This record gives sequence, structure tokens and C-alpha cells, in this order.
Amino acid sequence: MTSTEPMGMELGPRVRVDLQAVADAASVHRSTASRALNPATRHLVAAEAVARIEEAARALGYRRDDLAASLRTGRTNLIGVMVPDIINPIFAPILQGVETALARQGYSALVANAGNDPARQLGVAEQLIGRRVDGLILATSAEDDPIVAMCVQQDIPAVLVNRAERAARLPSVVSDDFEGMRLAVEHLFSLGHRRIGHVAGPAHLSTGVRRRAGFEAAMRTLGLEVDAIVTAGAYQRGAGAMAAAELLDSFAVTAIAASNDLLALGAYRAMAGLGLSCPQDVSIVGHNDMPLVDMVAPPLTTIRIDPLALGEKAAALLLDWLGSPPGMEPRAVQLVTKPTLVVRGSTAPPFSPPAPRSWPG
Amino acid sequence: MTSTEPMGMELGPRVRVDLQAVADAASVHRSTASRALNPATRHLVAAEAVARIEEAARALGYRRDDLAASLRTGRTNLIGVMVPDIINPIFAPILQGVETALARQGYSALVANAGNDPARQLGVAEQLIGRRVDGLILATSAEDDPIVAMCVQQDIPAVLVNRAERAARLPSVVSDDFEGMRLAVEHLFSLGHRRIGHVAGPAHLSTGVRRRAGFEAAMRTLGLEVDAIVTAGAYQRGAGAMAAAELLDSFAVTAIAASNDLLALGAYRAMAGLGLSCPQDVSIVGHNDMPLVDMVAPPLTTIRIDPLALGEKAAALLLDWLGSPPGMEPRAVQLVTKPTLVVRGSTAPPFSPPAPRSWPG
Repeated sequence: MTSTEPMGMELGPRVRVDLQAVADAASVHRSTASRALNPATRHLVAAEAVARIEEAARALGYRRDDLAASLRTGRTNLIGVMVPDIINPIFAPILQGVETALARQGYSALVANAGNDPARQLGVAEQLIGRRVDGLILATSAEDDPIVAMCVQQDIPAVLVNRAERAARLPSVVSDDFEGMRLAVEHLFSLGHRRIGHVAGPAHLSTGVRRRAGFEAAMRTLGLEVDAIVTAGAYQRGAGAMAAAELLDSFAVTAIAASNDLLALGAYRAMAGLGLSCPQDVSIVGHNDMPLVDMVAPPLTTIRIDPLALGEKAAALLLDWLGSPPGMEPRAVQLVTKPTLVVRGSTAPPFSPPAPRSWPG
Repeated sequence: MTSTEPMGMELGPRVRVDLQAVADAASVHRSTASRALNPATRHLVAAEAVARIEEAARALGYRRDDLAASLRTGRTNLIGVMVPDIINPIFAPILQGVETALARQGYSALVANAGNDPARQLGVAEQLIGRRVDGLILATSAEDDPIVAMCVQQDIPAVLVNRAERAARLPSVVSDDFEGMRLAVEHLFSLGHRRIGHVAGPAHLSTGVRRRAGFEAAMRTLGLEVDAIVTAGAYQRGAGAMAAAELLDSFAVTAIAASNDLLALGAYRAMAGLGLSCPQDVSIVGHNDMPLVDMVAPPLTTIRIDPLALGEKAAALLLDWLGSPPGMEPRAVQLVTKPTLVVRGSTAPPFSPPAPRSWPG
């Protein structure tokens, strides 16, 4: 079992059986065997023949050599996927959507957890391109993103997901952040809230910018005063707690619409620290409907986006680009999915005016 | 900006600048430039020189060509990572640990969301191998796993993470599941519980098997009767709710130790359905300490494992294997990390005997 050769120091030890042998064993033409063993072309071959050819390939120990195929076609069928923080629960379902859509067409995802630092992100993107990925899916992009600039300049196929640029230099798939905040504010208004605050997301991310803009527009449309806004430094619970504490300390709000669920859960913590109850003293609405927010106390009212669909659509758009003739790529496509309101226990009519608090200054 | 050539139909359009030009611009020898631009050898070059060479590379638009490098070395520096369900919150931090440890040495992770079906998993593994990954990290493995058999037979470097095989045919990194259940049972015992049930994980997964064995051993050591065990069909909340409902319906337990947090949250739901309160009627302990279980109602007492460390150690073990001379690979290494008990609000002394319930038969 132990090889006497250093592992992997030569090309080929794992691909000795050639395609002709598989074709012979399955009594098909070599080109049929080739199509049947390629996920991208398998559908062109009758299912019964595919099964027979796969059986023969397995029995003989044959495997497609994708590296050799890359040299013939110039394609690697690899897609680089950059996420800023794989632990943030929004990204796992996006990744799943991407991976599922790619796998259906024989593509694989090279996943890079790229962090939030722009210089590091750029280095990670360059490494992925050095690996000859056929394209990139970016869940990392900020407004005026240097990776986007690089992709545009070097004509690298790339699609933005969840976060987009205002300038729309590349295709993107995002939830309608503007509409999501309208749903949140109108829900609170319909319960009777008039003094509504916003814990905003980071100002360099499109989700932070657009959700804030959506909040402000919805408030103005309803004739409500727009002043109680504090921006969180990151999409994390701790940053949300700090921003919410400042908001509650500075403004006599009866409700908070947060830019995402982690910030909303941070607001829970800030309220507990101030001896306030949710929803009796202050109602809270999150954004994203990430896993388990239905089980926190109180269960979080939130705006549901569909991250699985975002991931699938982003992958589909990129594959569409890769399959398009020159000049026909879907470069200008900006897909927007519709969010929905999910009402749970964290929102209620304003029962009582908030307790007196200290005012700044 | 729009290329007149079909994207990617030839090798090379993105790597026109050669290494010598970068070396000349940075006034270093070509071999120094090569080392500085390779993440695996960068540490061999003075930091100041690395910065200058990277600056020159960026200014000239040079990028390492990893595909060409693969042909020279026979290595792709790609590691296939198979997870069964990327949405299960245990896997994101494992992935992060893997990716971080791989990136430090210039490797990238090809992530495949492989599902729970063994036949599909095997097909996914074969595709990764067809992509010439240098090795595999398997978070998918079941007892007597066909992918493990294939890796052993074909001498493919692979490491199991989180789940292992009893037969230990490959290296593995897992939390001490046996010890974790001892901590859970002894915690409940110390609160005064004597009738303790177990919602077990799937019997074909090592976590299910070992946690159940740990539960049974801990109960026997304390002289307690071991009969109240129901196995969940999957590590999902719904399956946990069904199993817990059956358990509560069949046995007069005052506490439940669940095989993981999702099953424990399922038990919350089952209790709510039966009109029972946690921890007043029944105490519950989870396993894993996944994100947000500190914020559910009541906050979940659980066994904390360190999935980030599991991922990092698994990647380190695989890289160690890839760097070992023939015969010296760490094939027999079975790393076990120590879990800890995290006490929160879901466990308390048994206040009252559970309400009368119907008995089976």
C-alpha cells in the first residue's frame, strides 16, 4: 500500500488507465465515453450508457485528468469564491448555493476566506487568478472595490453577490436592501411606533449604505423624523451592542430597525445591559433571517433574504458569462431578489414610553 | 476593455510578464524573486526584499502561473475539503481553520458540499481527485467509509476531521466525544439528576456512536440505569424534536443529554409541544457550542468543542503528510482535542417530578 515514490512528484501515477480502455469495456465509442464522464456533457448521453460507462471506469480505476483537460481547453473549470468571514452565518448558504449551481455544470469552487482587509483581499484574489480560475464570485466587495477594478481592467469574469457596488461595473445579485428596510419600518409603523432608530451597517459596504438609505426613505415617506441613526463598525454582535447602547442612550426611540441580525442580537445585549425589555420597552427588527434567530429570546422579527438563491443566481450568471460569445457577456446584469417580512416576538406595539435616560452633553 | 478573443480559450493571456522582468525591476536574482512570490517559500527572503519584489510584480502585472508550476512539480497545491452539510454551523469554523492553515503554506481549499448520500460523496471525491488535489480533508466520513477505503487503496493522502472511523485507517482529528458526554452526565448528576436520557446522533457516524458510548459509560460509572435512549435520524432540529418527543413520552427522565446542539434545540421544541418547561421540568445539555446557542431561550448548557482548531490541526496533519519522505507519513496519527463544559440556563436541579404522561403499549 505504501508507495515507494514520493507522493505526487510526477504526473500520472493515478491516471494510467486511458479513456479508450473504458470505451472498449463499455462497448461505446471513445467520444461517447468522454462525454459521459464529463459532468458538463453527460446529459448528451443516454442514462443507461452513462451508467455502463461509469461502471467500466470505476472497475478499471479510470479517472478524467482535469489538469490535462485544462491544458487542451485553456479552462480549469475552477471558480474562485471570496467570502469576508465564513463564520458569519449568511455566507454558508450563499456558498452552498454557489457550489450546487457550479457542480451541476462540472465546475468546482475554490473558496477563500479573505477577511475584511482590502489589501489582503486583493492578494487573495491575485492568488486565485494565479490558479487560473475561470472566474470569480465576490461576496467581499465594498463600494469602489479594488478587486472589482482589477477584474474590469484585466477582463476577468466576475460576479458580485450579496454586496454590490453603486457603480455596477460588474454583474451582481443582491437582495433588495432598500425594500427590506421599507418592510421593517412599515411593520413598526403599523404597530404604532413613531420614534424609530436604525443601527446601521458599515458605511463602506453596500448593504450598510443601501439599508440605511432604505430606512431613511421609508421614514420620510411616513413623515417621521430621521435622526436616530448610529453606525456599527462591523457586522458583529459586539459592534451592534455598542452602537445600540449609544442609540438608546441618545434617542428616546421605541423601536430599532437593525441593518442585520447580528446587529439586532447585539441590540438585545445592549438592552439587557440597560435593564430594558424587548419588546415591552423597545421593539427590534433584524435583517437576513439567519439560522436560529427564530429560537433566541425573544424570537427575532426580521427581513428574510434567500442567501441560497443569491448564491445559485450568482453562479448561474457567471456560468452564463463564461458560455457567452465575445461581446454578449451579461456584464450589465444587476439581479435583485425580493425580501420578505417575518414577524416574531421581538416587535409589539409601544406599551410604555421608554424610561428616562441620560442625554449626551 | 472587451477582449476580442473568447475568454480563456488560450493559455497565457494573463501571464505575459515573466519573472525575469520582475527580478530586474526589483534588482534581485531571479531565484530570489521566485521564492519571494511563492507563499510557501516567502519566509526565506528578507521582508524588505519581499515587499520590493511584490511591489515590482504588481506594477508590472506579473502573476505566478500555478498551472505551469503544477506541470513542473506534479503538485497542484489544491486540497479537496468535503463537508456533508455546509449549513450545519459546525462546519463553517472547521472550514475556516482548514483554509487558514492551508493558506499559510500556499495551499488552497477546493470545497465540496457533498451531502449525506455515500454514493454521491464517492462521486464528489472522485471528481476532486480528478482535479489532481494533493490530498483530501474529509468531514464527511462514516464508519467503514468507502471514500476512506478508496484513499487507502490508491494511496491518496487524506485526513478525517470531526468524524473518524473506529478502524483508524487514516489520520484523524476529533474532539473527545467520549469525554464530552462524561462532562455532560456528571454535570447533570451533580445537580441531582438520576433519571437522565440521551438523544443519540445517527448510528453510522462516529460522533453518534462515540457520544452514545460515552453517555452509557458515564451513566454506568455513576450507577445509573441506562435505558432512556432514542436515536435521531439526522443532526437536524426536526429529527431531534421527533426523537426527544419519543424519549419524553416513553421515559420519566428529568434531564436529557443530546448528541449535538441541533438535537438539543429540537428537544426544546418537543418540550414546548408537550407543555413542559426547560429547565423546570427537564434539563437539557447540548454538544458543540455552536454560534447563538448562548442566546436561545433558555441559553443552552453545552459541551464546547473547538471546530476552528479541529480544522487547523487536520490541515496541518495533511501538510505534514505531503511534506514527509516515503514511509514517514503520519498515517497512524489520531489527534483528540479536549472539550469543555459550558453551563448556561438550560440545566438546573430537578425541581419537580415530570408531569404524568402516557406510556407506550
